[in-house]
Amino acid sequence: MDIAITALPVIDFWFEFGSNYSYLSVMRIEQQAERAGVRIRLQPFLLGPVFHSFGWTTSPFVLQKAKGEYVWRDMERLCLKYGLPWKKPGNFPRSAVLPLRVAALAVDEPWMAEYCKRMMVLNFAQDRDIDNAEVVMEVLLAMHLPAANILEQAVSDKNKLKLRRQTETAIAKGIFGAPTFLVGDEMFWGNDRMDDALLFCKEHAGCIS
Amino acid sequence: MDIAITALPVIDFWFEFGSNYSYLSVMRIEQQAERAGVRIRLQPFLLGPVFHSFGWTTSPFVLQKAKGEYVWRDMERLCLKYGLPWKKPGNFPRSAVLPLRVAALAVDEPWMAEYCKRMMVLNFAQDRDIDNAEVVMEVLLAMHLPAANILEQAVSDKNKLKLRRQTETAIAKGIFGAPTFLVGDEMFWGNDRMDDALLFCKEHAGCIS
Repeated sequence: MDIAITALPVIDFWFEFGSNYSYLSVMRIEQQAERAGVRIRLQPFLLGPVFHSFGWTTSPFVLQKAKGEYVWRDMERLCLKYGLPWKKPGNFPRSAVLPLRVAALAVDEPWMAEYCKRMMVLNFAQDRDIDNAEVVMEVLLAMHLPAANILEQAVSDKNKLKLRRQTETAIAKGIFGAPTFLVGDEMFWGNDRMDDALLFCKEHAGCIS
Repeated sequence: MDIAITALPVIDFWFEFGSNYSYLSVMRIEQQAERAGVRIRLQPFLLGPVFHSFGWTTSPFVLQKAKGEYVWRDMERLCLKYGLPWKKPGNFPRSAVLPLRVAALAVDEPWMAEYCKRMMVLNFAQDRDIDNAEVVMEVLLAMHLPAANILEQAVSDKNKLKLRRQTETAIAKGIFGAPTFLVGDEMFWGNDRMDDALLFCKEHAGCIS
């Protein structure tokens, strides 16, 4: 007898392609969620409008110089620890509107997780600018997907609105950074809380709708 | 043949009595450092002047409402995980100038670690205001220490200057929050990095003067 995957407890994983700590979680969550017996709902959103809602013009890692310098050393150490490739982005925070529009479109597609990992690797391991049609096309084609068709849908008014609504939902839920994990209303912020969030999800299976 | 404790690798542990994440580390570091074979140098400092140097008037947990609300839930969960008592402070961030002056004075005393833990418990498990002579006296007397004499020395110009200089050193080292762990110039920020910092210290023993 099969256990339907939809019967597993669900965690919402909110992330941004421009967020370096999201990179760590995007690369790690599948394996960890499988181990915990938890189903992931990928929730891509735009971090910029969240920061703007606090009156910030850019990432706090840019606004706070001392913290910013620290963050790159922290990333270097964490990538070493997790066995992930790492190259400091020459441009940070890197805009990722188009890649995120594709993600918003593809949220229920079987290729979504792989697409997200490829985008993250381009930004944080290959220092590539990702917010342009050429790069997004390159990624989709490498995945043997109908790239032109996907790009066309991604920039439709309907899908632009979808990403905007998703970002408004993030703000409404009190999300203030990325990555953020939600198990029902229970919030866990940061890659450092990923394992706690998965464990909470597993232990509270059935308690949360 | 004895191995002198001074031969162990050294970690500098920078903390503030008003900092909730410092509470978690103050309560946990002794046991974890012993396990790692690492010697701790306690480095109390004032976080207020560090925040002021960023143009902030108070804690970022107060300035950012959404993050602030999250932090109390996060603390509740972490205290449960670590088996530490917890009561949300009715006043945050709580001023702790006098307790920190005593800490600056007592930094090499055998009772320093115990004193720090008692102060932290008052602030974060008993919701007591700690920045007054009565409470500091109460703590020192409970530890069978010459409280009046210690308090007198703590508020001497020489010792006030010691804490001020310590705080200037923190800023000069690029410390931007608490707790912060330093192994030579290698910085680890936050209770979440305590174990990584201790491991780094152990593995780089002898490499860092």
